[in-house]
Amino acid sequence: SVPPGVLPLCHQPLAWGRAAQQPLSPLQPPGLPLAPCRAFSNNKILVELDESSGVATMKFKSPPVNSLSLDFLTEFCISLEKLENDRACRGVIVTSAIPKVFSSGLDITEMCGKSTEHYGEFWRAVQEAWLRLYGSNMVTVAAVNGSSPAGGCLLALSCDYRIMVESPKFSIGLNETKLGIVAPFWFKDTFVNVVGHRVAERSLQLGALHPAPEAHKFGLVDELVPEEKLQEKAAAVMAQWLALPDYARQLTKSMMRKAVLDRLVAHREEDVQNFISFISKESIQKSLRMYMEMLKKKS
Amino acid sequence: SVPPGVLPLCHQPLAWGRAAQQPLSPLQPPGLPLAPCRAFSNNKILVELDESSGVATMKFKSPPVNSLSLDFLTEFCISLEKLENDRACRGVIVTSAIPKVFSSGLDITEMCGKSTEHYGEFWRAVQEAWLRLYGSNMVTVAAVNGSSPAGGCLLALSCDYRIMVESPKFSIGLNETKLGIVAPFWFKDTFVNVVGHRVAERSLQLGALHPAPEAHKFGLVDELVPEEKLQEKAAAVMAQWLALPDYARQLTKSMMRKAVLDRLVAHREEDVQNFISFISKESIQKSLRMYMEMLKKKS
Amino acid sequence: SVPPGVLPLCHQPLAWGRAAQQPLSPLQPPGLPLAPCRAFSNNKILVELDESSGVATMKFKSPPVNSLSLDFLTEFCISLEKLENDRACRGVIVTSAIPKVFSSGLDITEMCGKSTEHYGEFWRAVQEAWLRLYGSNMVTVAAVNGSSPAGGCLLALSCDYRIMVESPKFSIGLNETKLGIVAPFWFKDTFVNVVGHRVAERSLQLGALHPAPEAHKFGLVDELVPEEKLQEKAAAVMAQWLALPDYARQLTKSMMRKAVLDRLVAHREEDVQNFISFISKESIQKSLRMYMEMLKKKS
Repeated sequence: SVPPGVLPLCHQPLAWGRAAQQPLSPLQPPGLPLAPCRAFSNNKILVELDESSGVATMKFKSPPVNSLSLDFLTEFCISLEKLENDRACRGVIVTSAIPKVFSSGLDITEMCGKSTEHYGEFWRAVQEAWLRLYGSNMVTVAAVNGSSPAGGCLLALSCDYRIMVESPKFSIGLNETKLGIVAPFWFKDTFVNVVGHRVAERSLQLGALHPAPEAHKFGLVDELVPEEKLQEKAAAVMAQWLALPDYARQLTKSMMRKAVLDRLVAHREEDVQNFISFISKESIQKSLRMYMEMLKKKS
Repeated sequence: SVPPGVLPLCHQPLAWGRAAQQPLSPLQPPGLPLAPCRAFSNNKILVELDESSGVATMKFKSPPVNSLSLDFLTEFCISLEKLENDRACRGVIVTSAIPKVFSSGLDITEMCGKSTEHYGEFWRAVQEAWLRLYGSNMVTVAAVNGSSPAGGCLLALSCDYRIMVESPKFSIGLNETKLGIVAPFWFKDTFVNVVGHRVAERSLQLGALHPAPEAHKFGLVDELVPEEKLQEKAAAVMAQWLALPDYARQLTKSMMRKAVLDRLVAHREEDVQNFISFISKESIQKSLRMYMEMLKKKS
Repeated sequence: SVPPGVLPLCHQPLAWGRAAQQPLSPLQPPGLPLAPCRAFSNNKILVELDESSGVATMKFKSPPVNSLSLDFLTEFCISLEKLENDRACRGVIVTSAIPKVFSSGLDITEMCGKSTEHYGEFWRAVQEAWLRLYGSNMVTVAAVNGSSPAGGCLLALSCDYRIMVESPKFSIGLNETKLGIVAPFWFKDTFVNVVGHRVAERSLQLGALHPAPEAHKFGLVDELVPEEKLQEKAAAVMAQWLALPDYARQLTKSMMRKAVLDRLVAHREEDVQNFISFISKESIQKSLRMYMEMLKKKS
């Protein structure tokens, strides 16, 4: 709905390897025509579109912890693209169908003991997911109904508004340093745009996971609600944002986010190579293996 | 008072069409010599200079709502330039002589059903007013004694300090999206410099008008006072800022604001063309006509 | 400890005149081997390294007010470089051995009535101290146990975390404008990174010195404690930061600070020339002489 001559938000075609090899059609639920997607469920994400309100809900349902695997990210991008191109859809609520966790972040198994090519493919999918969500023309509301570390936090940060269940048992943050890895510059840029430079500097260095009340205090999330009110609140916030004319709202959103989106677009391949060479270091691989074994023992 | 070799704040000659055609002298009150302006009243703005304190007061008096028409903006720029060049003047308090409204913002009649040339002339006047106020070497204090949407909010944001009457009946904000239009990047930059990126992103997308107490909470205004204390408070704040040595204060102000001022200066004509092509769209014209009719019915 | 191929924080060799003329060895305490410095005391700064924790303490002990003279800054840079190169040291707590004052800031006698060459040498030392502290790979905690105006405030701002004694008698801020001088752009950048653009704009223009409780309110310092708890608290904060893997923490810190560090590195000589031409102005020299005489009368 953005007319020509105006800078639209970032909408690049799906470009990474896997998507190019796999046709989109197998992901379509059987019995639905290709063009007007109204509701579709894939393996890892359930998408429902309420045509009367124009609001879709994306529910992450990839047990045990909605980790962002290559498959998950591929599905996420395809789902988002479908909604973006669907004229009946103006907003998306992103939430989890798994109790107690929104998303545990990037899937460590994709970064451990794999080939250089695999690391590259995975990282392009992470970039793509962020570019599409942070640059979406739709209104995006995160209904954070569980813990949301690292990449899970990034997804929430990339939405227009964040509502979180008020329980201090659930925490959120970019805790990469705790694992011995480093959030890339565009995670950092997204974080700084939400909480400011100082809070980001401290929180990123400490790899802090903030309990919901603390996260709310410094603006990492916009609002806290009891769990049973979350979906109702998300719908109300969505309605408030959808009351604005789409075109003016989209141009304004683009103006606010363009600099940060453009920075990754300009350095995308460099960022992939950085990731590959960092993650391929033996010291980093060792850290990740130890972390995974610790997780196994826990469960 | 800025010595050569030092980057002064932005002081460009009055450059838009109307000012070039109209000599300045008719705006001078009769009986006063041209050079040392001490007090002058035009059609739309009353200016009084207290020589003992070095403080001028600019009172907007353009009924019904101090809307920023081409005439108003022209007078505003000329008044500001006079004060800027007057060695007896070191600070300006900007306020309204109209009850309940500071300024209603850009005059929509200037943007509706006019020629391309007119849109260009009008937009250059808006730019000029902002460049002069945001880049003023004088101390500028906004005494916001009424509602202040859109362009009215921009004027307040461009001052060094904002005091607002504490009543929740008065609101302030950049509500352009509600009218289906988009605040230009330099409105946004000015806003971000005051309230930070996150608050600006949300407030601009929602086209939010914030009641005074809310605006104060997140720093859109610096201080709230009862209406009867406003002028006294503005004078006290002004005295505090004037206690600093002008030269060091001006250089510091320039250091803080230069990047944002330079950005418009570098893209000024491009910004004019963007405005013209945006405002000339039939869909935008239709929105504005509907909005004006709604306003007419209200009054 | 930063591997090749990764952008390290700024570590330039000591480059200003004095350091090049003076060999480092005379500053080494007698009886210690050159390489593994474990504890050393110079004229103006006492450095103690606790090998079990990896934490060094730098105590400013230059009466009467720890002013940042050329000698002080030289010693500061050499001390910091020694610690930076010492594998046993991972963090530094910066504090004062002088009651009631952390540091009074740049030594005005270095800027008054001296040669152009001296001004240049002095300013390079100020730059060097900031580049080394703001870009340190170590965890840096400021334990602010007294007032900390101007350059003293800059030192605190350049650390990773600031704890201040809670007494309202102690104040902190970049008050340069009050002396008729202007904080350079990199003081400003450091300040904006901590408190945001709006607070910095207002505070810098007013040359404000903020009592500790006020400074804490808007984030200029991170935490307030009673004086007797300061060292204990600093140690606890340090332990929290040292719990993170050094490498990931350092890369994250570099990512947050690199843009601002690079900006001075790119304009370093220009900044020296600006300082020299500004400080050599007769009007500025006069202001500084008056200020020094006022200080003399006070004491």
